[in-house]
Parts: sequence; C-alpha cells; structure tokens
Amino acid sequence: MQHTPTYLVNGDFNLEISPLDRGFAYGDGVFRTMVMQGGLPVDWPLHYQKLVADCAVIGIVCPSAELLMGDFLQLFSIEDIDSTKQAVAKIIISRGEGARGYKPPAVTTPTRVVIKSAMPDYAKEYYATGVHLYVCDTRLASQTKLAGIKHLNRLENVVARMEWRDESIFDGLLLDQQGNAIECTMSNIFARFDTTLMTPELSQCGVAGITRQRILSLAAVLNLTVEVAPMSLGRLLQADELIICNSLYGAFQVNKIGNNTWSQQALAKTFRSLLTHD
Amino acid sequence: MQHTPTYLVNGDFNLEISPLDRGFAYGDGVFRTMVMQGGLPVDWPLHYQKLVADCAVIGIVCPSAELLMGDFLQLFSIEDIDSTKQAVAKIIISRGEGARGYKPPAVTTPTRVVIKSAMPDYAKEYYATGVHLYVCDTRLASQTKLAGIKHLNRLENVVARMEWRDESIFDGLLLDQQGNAIECTMSNIFARFDTTLMTPELSQCGVAGITRQRILSLAAVLNLTVEVAPMSLGRLLQADELIICNSLYGAFQVNKIGNNTWSQQALAKTFRSLLTHD
Repeated sequence: MQHTPTYLVNGDFNLEISPLDRGFAYGDGVFRTMVMQGGLPVDWPLHYQKLVADCAVIGIVCPSAELLMGDFLQLFSIEDIDSTKQAVAKIIISRGEGARGYKPPAVTTPTRVVIKSAMPDYAKEYYATGVHLYVCDTRLASQTKLAGIKHLNRLENVVARMEWRDESIFDGLLLDQQGNAIECTMSNIFARFDTTLMTPELSQCGVAGITRQRILSLAAVLNLTVEVAPMSLGRLLQADELIICNSLYGAFQVNKIGNNTWSQQALAKTFRSLLTHD
Repeated sequence: MQHTPTYLVNGDFNLEISPLDRGFAYGDGVFRTMVMQGGLPVDWPLHYQKLVADCAVIGIVCPSAELLMGDFLQLFSIEDIDSTKQAVAKIIISRGEGARGYKPPAVTTPTRVVIKSAMPDYAKEYYATGVHLYVCDTRLASQTKLAGIKHLNRLENVVARMEWRDESIFDGLLLDQQGNAIECTMSNIFARFDTTLMTPELSQCGVAGITRQRILSLAAVLNLTVEVAPMSLGRLLQADELIICNSLYGAFQVNKIGNNTWSQQALAKTFRSLLTHD
C-alpha cells in the first residue's frame, strides 16, 4: 500500500500552496529531507543550520527553529513518538507569494511546508553488499551562485533520474560539463584511495549534504586523510572503495558502476555505525 | 493600487497547489506568459505550440488547447471581452503530484494553472526612446538538456534580477559562462550590424521565446539577413542597433548599457508595428 503523506503549510493542516507562490512559479526556495525517530528529527542542528545557510544564499529569512519544531510536534503523532519506527520529514521553504515577475517583493513572508512520509524500504542487500550506480548522460550545469545549496530548481535531477528504469540501479552518478564526478541524483559520493578519502568539491554544482559534512568530520576517527577536490570519472573508477551517502540511508558501498565492480568492503558499514548516534 | 490576480487550477477557481506537486517540489514544469486582448490570447497558436514542445522536452503531456481555451473563457470575463483593454495570462503546466523522490510517477496528471494579471504599465519613454540595460554578474549555466525551454527552474533569473534596484534599468543582460551575451532576464535580444540582424544561439542556455521566433521570421520583410550565432558582450556592444523583445511589450530599443549608448533609431518601433496583427 502506498503511504499517504500528510503535510502542514505554515503550520496549518488545511492550507495548500497558492499558484502565486514563488516556489511554484520559479522554484524560488530550498528544502531538506531528514529521518524522524521517536517523533524528532535526527541531526536537527545540522539540518537547521544548512536550511538557514541555503535560505541566506538566495536572500530568504528562514523561519525559526521553534516554528519548525512546532510543526514536527503537530505532524508526527503520539504513535510516532512512542515507537522506534522511523519516518521521513521534508521541509520546504519558499520565498512566499509574489506578483508576476522575477523581482522578489520588497517584503515577503516565506512559505513553510513540512511533509511527513514513510521511511523508504531499502533492500537488505544494499546494507550487506552495496548498490549499483549508473552514469547519467545528463551533466550538471556550472552555477557558482547556487552551487552547494539544496534549492527547488531540481529539473536536472529529474531528467537524470528519468534516464534509467532498471530497478537494480540504486542511484545515478552525475558528472559536470568537464566530466568530473560530482554526486549522485540523491546522494553525495566518496572515494577511498588507500588511506585518503576523497570527495568532489562542489563550488560549481552539486548539493553539499549534511551527511557528506558529517563523513568529512568522522574520517579522522578512521585515520583517513580527507581531500576535497575535482575528481574525473576515470579517477573515481580507480578508487579502492566507493561509498555514497545521504540523510536517509546513511552510507552504502558502491559495488558496481557499468562494468566496474568492487568487492565487499567495510567502509560504508563503518560510517553507518559512526553516523548513528544511539 | 496593486492588481489582485485571479487564477484557475485545473479549471477550478477553488483549487490551490498541493505541496506534493512536483512543480513546487522541483520546479518540474513549464510556463508561458502572453497578452490577452478582447478576452483572447494573442499569438495563441505559437504560444500553445511552444508550450507543447517545452512539455515534451521534459516528458509532460501538455493539456489540450481546448482545456486551456476553456480556462481563458472562465477567467477573462465579459468586460475583458467587450473592451480593447489588454491583460496578461500566465499558463503554468507542472508534471502534477507525486511521492517524494525525483523519479516521476509512472502515470501523472499534469497540473494546469492559468493566472490573470494586469498588463504592465510600461513608461511612455520606453516606446519613444528605448530602455537601459544592466549587465548581470550572474552568468547562465550551460545545460543542453534544458536550454531554450521555459521551465520552472528560474532561480538564475531571480538572483540576476535581485542584483539591481535602480528603477531606471529595465532589464538585465545575462551572459553565459564564456562571456557570450544570451538574453535578458525577461527578454530576448537582437543586435543589428548594418543589414545583418544577429541573435544569440540558445543551444546551451536561455529561453527561445516566441517573439524572438516571430522577429526572426519578420526580418526578411525589412531585407535584413538573419544570423543566429554566439555573440560576445564586446561584439554586442559594437552593434549599430540593439533591441530586446518579449510577448508583453513586443520590442524596445536598447539605448544604454553601462557607458555605452545608442541614439534613437527605428528598428524596435518597426518590429512592434510588424508584430501587431490588428
């Protein structure tokens, strides 16, 4: 059965989005997706900090953490709080309503949406032996003014995701216009070369996710040297070990990209363990 | 007084947009803006053709022309039809609602929005002597998969438009990553060099508007040779005459970009006249 998501718009169960909302008209806003456990958001300070920072890049004043926490309390009910079951919360902040035209109104009231949905049912083998990636034909465009932020202009991800229907493929690797590996459609990527952990630098394109940030911080625990730098597809395919990450599944090992395969290794599992707080 | 726009969502005055709509979540859709005169859309066949083509690029089946015409008849009332007064119609087509995730649902019902707003009150001097442009610092990203189409991922236009507050500036010139002139935030651009009319080619970025298309067709009437090619900012500034165009104002002469000025000339006025059917 399809889980029916429920949502709050500006803290209200009965509101929807106006067609005049700039989020709908122009993708003028940002979003975040996070795990809810025991009715509370996991890694909330990092998520909120990133939400505020992303809003700031495009000149939106992010609603307060208190307002959003109030939304979580309304939307995630007692049974969520009582259980250890996980759910997913998605926060969307748009610039709010405005008249036609790209110029934002002098004063705007951001629109705040929190959507509840079911935790994805990841296959057991993803945890045990890893996932397959596909190299997307769609290349990420270079835009320094918007790189790294998780904004609502996600048509590139949509057209990239439409490229494959093979259900054995977990995610699609996205390259930039120069052929450097950047990220996957819904994940960041790390490549281990001996004791160096590399991840693509995201100054031109890509989304700098908070799990990426946490893995960069945790690498020292494993005596790994961190390197954030451009990485060609060819270089990435030579990695001793590849992992992808996001806020929902934590980290998965990549065991196959096209004809390239990697045997089972421990890094993804180790990071999953380190990423888990409890 | 601010004009209050009114709108129809899927032909219904009482509907709004679900936060689960992919137009809101990802900017997963396209739009058009057109003049309504006597209650009917000007250049409708070209607009509808472009809407269908843009939808097709991202795999959306565009609602029928009959459905949209029905919306116009509902939204633009008898007084609009009886008067010669102009208004603006904006059509937004999104992929429709979907579960969380970039992958579009196997079957989607596109969301169809028609918004009515007032015709902009363009200053008389824009028609008489032309407009000033500003060269935006924001550069357009190169994305062959989406270039030319008027999709809902318009954050670049928004951040570019936020660069200036000087009300004497009518529009902002957008360059690509290589420094070629592409378009303005809400207009296409043409440069006349002697008897050649040049306009930037839009295979990497930009929106190929229908007024641009009409001007390309009309150029022969004026014995102008048309050239669609990359054009550096330096080359553009050497033009004998510059004009910008869109569906609402038709064509305006550019009389100033930074320190570069152009004296009053006839091309924009001539095209405005040729663009007008009645």
